[in-house]
Amino acid sequence: MSDLPVTFSDIEAAAARIAPFVRRTPVLTSRRLNELVGAEVFFKCENFQRIGAFKARGAHNAVLSLGPEAVARGVVTHSSGNHAAALSLAARNRGTSAFIVMPSNAPKAKVESVLRLGGEITFCEPTILAREAAAAAIVADRGATLVHPYDDPLVIAGQGTAALELLSQAPDLDAVIAPVGGGGLMAGTAVAVRGHGPNVAIWASEPAQADDAWRSWRQGVRTAGDPPDTIADGLRTTLGENGFVILRALLDEFVTVPEASIATAMRLVWEILKIVIESSSAVPVAALLGGGLPVRGQRIGVILTGGNVDLDRPPWASAAA
Amino acid sequence: MSDLPVTFSDIEAAAARIAPFVRRTPVLTSRRLNELVGAEVFFKCENFQRIGAFKARGAHNAVLSLGPEAVARGVVTHSSGNHAAALSLAARNRGTSAFIVMPSNAPKAKVESVLRLGGEITFCEPTILAREAAAAAIVADRGATLVHPYDDPLVIAGQGTAALELLSQAPDLDAVIAPVGGGGLMAGTAVAVRGHGPNVAIWASEPAQADDAWRSWRQGVRTAGDPPDTIADGLRTTLGENGFVILRALLDEFVTVPEASIATAMRLVWEILKIVIESSSAVPVAALLGGGLPVRGQRIGVILTGGNVDLDRPPWASAAA
Repeated sequence: MSDLPVTFSDIEAAAARIAPFVRRTPVLTSRRLNELVGAEVFFKCENFQRIGAFKARGAHNAVLSLGPEAVARGVVTHSSGNHAAALSLAARNRGTSAFIVMPSNAPKAKVESVLRLGGEITFCEPTILAREAAAAAIVADRGATLVHPYDDPLVIAGQGTAALELLSQAPDLDAVIAPVGGGGLMAGTAVAVRGHGPNVAIWASEPAQADDAWRSWRQGVRTAGDPPDTIADGLRTTLGENGFVILRALLDEFVTVPEASIATAMRLVWEILKIVIESSSAVPVAALLGGGLPVRGQRIGVILTGGNVDLDRPPWASAAA
Repeated sequence: MSDLPVTFSDIEAAAARIAPFVRRTPVLTSRRLNELVGAEVFFKCENFQRIGAFKARGAHNAVLSLGPEAVARGVVTHSSGNHAAALSLAARNRGTSAFIVMPSNAPKAKVESVLRLGGEITFCEPTILAREAAAAAIVADRGATLVHPYDDPLVIAGQGTAALELLSQAPDLDAVIAPVGGGGLMAGTAVAVRGHGPNVAIWASEPAQADDAWRSWRQGVRTAGDPPDTIADGLRTTLGENGFVILRALLDEFVTVPEASIATAMRLVWEILKIVIESSSAVPVAALLGGGLPVRGQRIGVILTGGNVDLDRPPWASAAA
């Protein structure tokens, strides 16, 4: 593990660094969900994290690691999602600026969230090329530091602190499972779990309709796969290189789940645990319910990634209307 | 306070009695909600309670207080709501039977919830007279003990344990607020808070369109008021006599809130706290946001009563569709 881009001690350092600014989120359990899964399940509730998602961890670790010169120049990212809000909050907490490049068609709620947290938005055309160009221009003009949403080793180390906490909150786990989008959370989780000890299995989960990471992991070559088409909007990104290397080295199991099972699992968690989770969070729950993992009688930790959803349009609403 | 139907020591006894069977629910906070209210607010999350509502507390206290003869004969209630599920669970935990009288048109989810918890359902015509007659018949035939959903002193004492916990989890509160339906929770809360000390204000809240308790409290005479017409379905019941006596003796403030503010507050809690609460829970939140209470700069505890909602039909969905 020592030759991986992120180490266990990176995660321990991240945990100490970000502690004043992020929440130690609770772990919830439910007898009814245990019965449905056939295992003891411990839900790490990153939906209760600052900005409503685990992304607060990685962004804080990256921003708090900046030297004084870099701090004076600010940070930049091109993201319309949770990372944009997380970076805005982290920059505010460090007393610096966050420059957020967003597509002109970004949802109003996401724009407001970034503005509320003090981020400075630059709108651009809704293409990845336009976003990257706008971010590069800010880097060139201001000397701001680009903080990649999922492949920056400091971001990966920060995301790993959720699993680190979970392992201490729910002792003697047999396995930990998380979803894979860009791979930052899953890679950090894998390093945290393996660093904790050899006896906890590391499981990954991905929507079958956004399975680039699963294909990459199976084939040993990072591949983009088909264009993602999943309700789990946080998982539509492509696996990063550092994430790929770590997942190849450390994962014990990797399953994909069909779309319908994601909406079902999401609704079950809302209904039984009484918490609001986003669709990405439901992917590992769907994996545990799906029968493709050796769950029976095990103690399993699940990272629930976040809770930022459009409450007017939960994915089961159209089916019910 | 010594001449009230429920005393502080009744609540302390209830807390010890029910501890093995109910959850010590968490208290959540949010900087954003604090800013919106203009106070420090501590949310006691009874939506995470067993059966998804505080009712588990009162039902357990009543059932665990039964003598051996009564236990052998079972308990009965006529309720289609959370009390039915709570009594079913409490009876199962005591090894006795719960006979639940339900109207023939009760929602499928409520029927399934009672059956899953081992309750034995008797269906009747959907009128209050038919329900009472069916329950009375079970009392007569089987010698089962009727456990009133909100006016039984043991039930009131059980419900008061939520506030008792809150007072220890969030020290130095200036006020505690809860909603009023039948008055069991509010009465138990009032006795717990006043027994804790003289410096914590006791605030009640009720939908303006189901304000029988507010009218009764103001006029000093228990009155049914207009027929209730509120989305807060848990608060459509009429204040009980014991609840009335306790509320008259102990409340410091009592405010009513308009319907629209209930849906708005409910959505805010889902969105910001990332938890699922039922509309009754949103009533005290609406009261804090409504400007009618001296909240500014105070430390305020709120009992969020439960989280059993129809996820297909949150009250803001029709407005959004």
